[in-house]
Amino acid sequence: MEKKKFKSTVIERRKEALENLESLGIKIYDQLDKGFFPSVEMPSRSLENIHYDPLLRQFILGDRKVRRSARNIRHLKPFTQLVWAAAFSHELTSQRKTSTLRDVYYSAQAYEMTFTDQQESNNIITDLETVLGLSREDFNIFPEERSAVFGDLTIEYTVPGYEGRTLNLTSHPDGVLIGPALTSSEFVKTTADKVIAIEKGGLFTRFIEENVHKKFNAILVLTAGQSPRATRHFIRRLNSELNLPVYIFTDGDPWGMHIAMVIISGSANAAHLRELNTPDAKWSGVWATDIVNYKLPTDPLDDVDIKRLYELQRDPRYKDPLWQREIKTFMKIKKKAEQEAFSRYGLTYIVDEYLPAKLEETK
Amino acid sequence: MEKKKFKSTVIERRKEALENLESLGIKIYDQLDKGFFPSVEMPSRSLENIHYDPLLRQFILGDRKVRRSARNIRHLKPFTQLVWAAAFSHELTSQRKTSTLRDVYYSAQAYEMTFTDQQESNNIITDLETVLGLSREDFNIFPEERSAVFGDLTIEYTVPGYEGRTLNLTSHPDGVLIGPALTSSEFVKTTADKVIAIEKGGLFTRFIEENVHKKFNAILVLTAGQSPRATRHFIRRLNSELNLPVYIFTDGDPWGMHIAMVIISGSANAAHLRELNTPDAKWSGVWATDIVNYKLPTDPLDDVDIKRLYELQRDPRYKDPLWQREIKTFMKIKKKAEQEAFSRYGLTYIVDEYLPAKLEETK
Repeated sequence: MEKKKFKSTVIERRKEALENLESLGIKIYDQLDKGFFPSVEMPSRSLENIHYDPLLRQFILGDRKVRRSARNIRHLKPFTQLVWAAAFSHELTSQRKTSTLRDVYYSAQAYEMTFTDQQESNNIITDLETVLGLSREDFNIFPEERSAVFGDLTIEYTVPGYEGRTLNLTSHPDGVLIGPALTSSEFVKTTADKVIAIEKGGLFTRFIEENVHKKFNAILVLTAGQSPRATRHFIRRLNSELNLPVYIFTDGDPWGMHIAMVIISGSANAAHLRELNTPDAKWSGVWATDIVNYKLPTDPLDDVDIKRLYELQRDPRYKDPLWQREIKTFMKIKKKAEQEAFSRYGLTYIVDEYLPAKLEETK
Repeated sequence: MEKKKFKSTVIERRKEALENLESLGIKIYDQLDKGFFPSVEMPSRSLENIHYDPLLRQFILGDRKVRRSARNIRHLKPFTQLVWAAAFSHELTSQRKTSTLRDVYYSAQAYEMTFTDQQESNNIITDLETVLGLSREDFNIFPEERSAVFGDLTIEYTVPGYEGRTLNLTSHPDGVLIGPALTSSEFVKTTADKVIAIEKGGLFTRFIEENVHKKFNAILVLTAGQSPRATRHFIRRLNSELNLPVYIFTDGDPWGMHIAMVIISGSANAAHLRELNTPDAKWSGVWATDIVNYKLPTDPLDDVDIKRLYELQRDPRYKDPLWQREIKTFMKIKKKAEQEAFSRYGLTYIVDEYLPAKLEETK
């Protein structure tokens, strides 16, 4: 099989994760050797230190730092927990095993490390991300899988037992899961010239059945609602390594809009991270103006929807005219529509008419 | 590739679906030809007509019938809707396209067939299942995909564009989705001697990483919570066509217990259907007695959990001594535990110790 590898970030990232973890350990040993109480410093994640960066088009952390020191009795517990989390993550990464946030919480007990509840252990993992400047998936702590992909992309696995094996992502016409093996694979070959991300499983299946991947040379990604971070990182890689434009199709409501926005510009919770967002990705629909133009069947916006629209209106990620126009239109028509609403014009209308029109419009 | 096909039900079921739909149509035309108001008769799904059958080990419908006639003005709308649903399903099945319940609701508008809301269209599809004696997946109305499978089973697709193509279900180490293509595939070859169904994605990934499929010759199925009906039908086929015993692992709480029970004995909602349950499947854990014996980290049962346990205690599906014992133990210890709780003994304890012990115990 002819192999045409794209510039990959997989190997470097794993190396970087291990190196960062090890240099954290060395730093702590050094401090102990010198007779100091060990400490770590990291950017503060408090609300006052989270700013929107219009250049990076995402939230970032400011200059404020917090220091966690073994000298301070109130810091002693979280400091120890952080060092344990680093050691555990190093164990995972070097043994090439993956884990989940839930697993981390229970695993701590195997080491007689106690967390009051899962929230506490989740926070420590976020601290570790902040200290290392890496996403937890880089040190092998993954979310539960639920999103999927289908399309002409040949990948080469790097996970144990599968090294060097390849798979073309059209092999299974229901789609394959986006989990640790897929996200750590190298991209070998593709004929696709775009990525289409889809919020809902029903439409993902429809797109495969209607050969959207062939007709539009597209790799199809099912986000299954708000996309897990591993999926957002995968979409970013499709965009940056393969140079493929990304189009996002969601339900026509504030929640669908925000699914698209988080793929594009990330979340405030991940202000300490890069490499998760795809700033050039486009939200291609269902827009509020599509609801009007295509005369779609609708449901009325409820109070929670409207409250959400007011929040989004003030959100710095939503300042562009297109987003503001759509928010205003939602508020004016007071209606929302699902992706499936296009079936009122027949099952294939969305593929035959709507999709090509919107791909053209948001090119 | 050597092909060893197992007794398959795929082709017959599709033929049966089309034939049943067509004979329904012929029946209606016949009545019209004879100058009668057309009508259909089906078993009543009212609560009084749902009984538990200890022999079949599932809920079934009794002898009461309902008749829907075009003569009765109150029946006219649901009768018309039913006939439309049958025509639409025939269109889907003969064109080999799939749809979802949501899509059906919107598609009706393309035919100027109105449903007040989705509940109404869902009910009509259930009526159609009852009339035909088939599950809606048989006439190509599928749930959203979210469950997955991994293990040494070679399947042969029957969906358009993939006819005759095969895939081994170890090809993608994150697992492949259980969707229309997988559930309509033929089983060609396997070395597995059991099926292990798992409630949660984190554990499914752990099992793959720890080579449970090899060490225990198992096909691993991720139910992702309460398993969709297509997944239950797939598990049943693994059991009946390949003769593989099925072991189910869930969280140790009333909800996990019921995930296992629905795979085994089905739900009251599907009393009009067969072919969804696997009566010989075993719930292998996490039992309440496992929580005690393995000294697992726990959370207290809350009021909703306890209320649910009282419901299950009276449920005819739960009459066997093992289930009653576990319900009583839950009530006594007033605690629940997740599958991940075994990580307190290290990440691989669940695979090295717990899994083999429980497979032996529930053999």
